[in-house]
Amino acid sequence: MDKKKLAGEQAATYIEEGMILGLGTGSTVYWTIQKLGELVKQGLKIKGIPTSKATEHLARELGIPILDISEVQEIDLTIDGADEVNPDFALIKGGGGALFREKMVASLSRRLLIVVDDSKVVSTLGKFPLPVEVVPFGWEITSRNIARLGCSPKLRLHTAGPFITDNGNYILDCYFTEIQHPELLNEQLTKIIGVVETGLFVNMAEMIIVGGNDGVSVKSTPMQSEAANE
Amino acid sequence: MDKKKLAGEQAATYIEEGMILGLGTGSTVYWTIQKLGELVKQGLKIKGIPTSKATEHLARELGIPILDISEVQEIDLTIDGADEVNPDFALIKGGGGALFREKMVASLSRRLLIVVDDSKVVSTLGKFPLPVEVVPFGWEITSRNIARLGCSPKLRLHTAGPFITDNGNYILDCYFTEIQHPELLNEQLTKIIGVVETGLFVNMAEMIIVGGNDGVSVKSTPMQSEAANE
Repeated sequence: MDKKKLAGEQAATYIEEGMILGLGTGSTVYWTIQKLGELVKQGLKIKGIPTSKATEHLARELGIPILDISEVQEIDLTIDGADEVNPDFALIKGGGGALFREKMVASLSRRLLIVVDDSKVVSTLGKFPLPVEVVPFGWEITSRNIARLGCSPKLRLHTAGPFITDNGNYILDCYFTEIQHPELLNEQLTKIIGVVETGLFVNMAEMIIVGGNDGVSVKSTPMQSEAANE
Repeated sequence: MDKKKLAGEQAATYIEEGMILGLGTGSTVYWTIQKLGELVKQGLKIKGIPTSKATEHLARELGIPILDISEVQEIDLTIDGADEVNPDFALIKGGGGALFREKMVASLSRRLLIVVDDSKVVSTLGKFPLPVEVVPFGWEITSRNIARLGCSPKLRLHTAGPFITDNGNYILDCYFTEIQHPELLNEQLTKIIGVVETGLFVNMAEMIIVGGNDGVSVKSTPMQSEAANE
């Protein structure tokens, strides 16, 4: 069975009646949303907050009720993918360009559950270029300031010119190779004028579901599980 | 003589042949730019980087040569206004909504010279509501998170709906009343998801020119003056 499908469907078992759910974006969480669509057809009552227009479209097609993020104070559970996961559950996200909305949804969530296939599990973050969303005005200066932190930033391009995020900004893909201190790096980056948000998600994920050749493995951080049980 | 005109024209005496100049925005620096226009007509060779479309328009009218910010590595001197200045030269800026471009230009400048009338000089920042530029998506959540730092944020409105910055974002005017630790507050604010930039300028201004009833007073921070002489 497909690794992504295995992980994605397993995540759906954590969904409970009445939940407000953050719905992630990508090829693994796609399977969670498919499964969720089946559960809703069988009578499960939940409401979903999508992290991208693509996910919103998919959810509507499957009959999943949608809420706007401004309507909620808290999200019970968010299920999302990641581009890299390290042993401390720090993540790189934003390969698809939706990092801002994903981080906003994650920050409102009592629990963040990440679904990946085993190719995304790494000992050190940074092989995957870190996406950083920046204001277009003066982006060359922002890029120079980011480069001083030890990477080569590259403006993400689209068919005709720069890739534009949902917020009207640019993405710099930052080649760090090795990110030893994700929390520190995230702080350093967000201090730079012009940086809107980074794809580093630190101390946010509580559970990782990994699909591999031998099936699914579930990892959770004890500390954050306790916090979630408050 | 008008206090603002006094301060603004005094600032022009710091302009030297060959400089790349950051040109601020507002009713005091307006007089600097007028003076600069005269100097250029008399043969002074400088190039200006405007912090707003209004200033760009004014500079072009006066025949001041304009550069794009992406063309420079460094700015020799920026002259700009402020909404409040405290004794440590920490500033609140952005009453006009151009805080992002002003901060980007200031950050590239070897020297930042602030021109104000004496009504802007305060013992503690915060009576003037602090402008914070935020991403429109989820701004209600960003606003709640900012409020937790001890203020009431208010969405800045325009004739028809929210005021929109040059970057396509919103402005929250944050009523703190007293800002005891501007540097700390700035860090706390920039960490919040959705905050693009704040109107707090800390450790940036090197010299303040204040226009009052008894003429002009010039204040400079010894430490930063040394750095500028490197």
